[in-house]
Amino acid sequence: MTDKNPLEENIEFTPRFDEKELIPCITTDIENGQVLMFAFMNQTALNKTIETGEVHYWSRSRQELWHKGATSGNTQHIVEIRTDCDQDCIWISVKSGPACHTGRPTCFYRKLNTKTGKLDFIETD
Amino acid sequence: MTDKNPLEENIEFTPRFDEKELIPCITTDIENGQVLMFAFMNQTALNKTIETGEVHYWSRSRQELWHKGATSGNTQHIVEIRTDCDQDCIWISVKSGPACHTGRPTCFYRKLNTKTGKLDFIETD
Repeated sequence: MTDKNPLEENIEFTPRFDEKELIPCITTDIENGQVLMFAFMNQTALNKTIETGEVHYWSRSRQELWHKGATSGNTQHIVEIRTDCDQDCIWISVKSGPACHTGRPTCFYRKLNTKTGKLDFIETD
Repeated sequence: MTDKNPLEENIEFTPRFDEKELIPCITTDIENGQVLMFAFMNQTALNKTIETGEVHYWSRSRQELWHKGATSGNTQHIVEIRTDCDQDCIWISVKSGPACHTGRPTCFYRKLNTKTGKLDFIETD
């Protein structure tokens, strides 16, 4: 174990945003461990998430704060927030309704068939 | 379920790389579902991953192809490769030794204590 980098071994939460002031966020389902979705947060979204206990992202396409589920009703309730060694990624475990805008539980509903090079649809639940 | 966007409902694997020609990759442990790490791939890294069954990333800091575990011996063996609805993210399930350069199984070994605003270290195994 190295302590070369204090960022990696201290208890200060100092998330590192990228040049667009965004940090990637992996969201998983506390019930089954599935990755539900991947999106970005800015500082405001991260703050709102922590304050409210409901996940907020930054919508890159709409360029606005995105309270997940505000319109669909499928809000995501925080169970745990983790960060990685160099604090440039957030991993959130949530209780959530269907996460994908297609209505599916997860956005990751296709897997690569490495024999055919095509995608196979996965039964998600 | 919408079929507005054929990208979301077809079987063609057409990963969408960003303006730096990278795609984010979430790597999870098939044994326990934990998120092990988060990194990026370019087309070459993705091809190599598929061809060899061992995960290759693109190292942004070193600006080179990164065969994970080539030096440490902790290679990551592909179990499943998924992509998300708009194919701008890859999720890989692997069999893996310790994924973090600190020697820990996962890079996500700290969680946010939302009461104190500090990070708590998690026992990882």
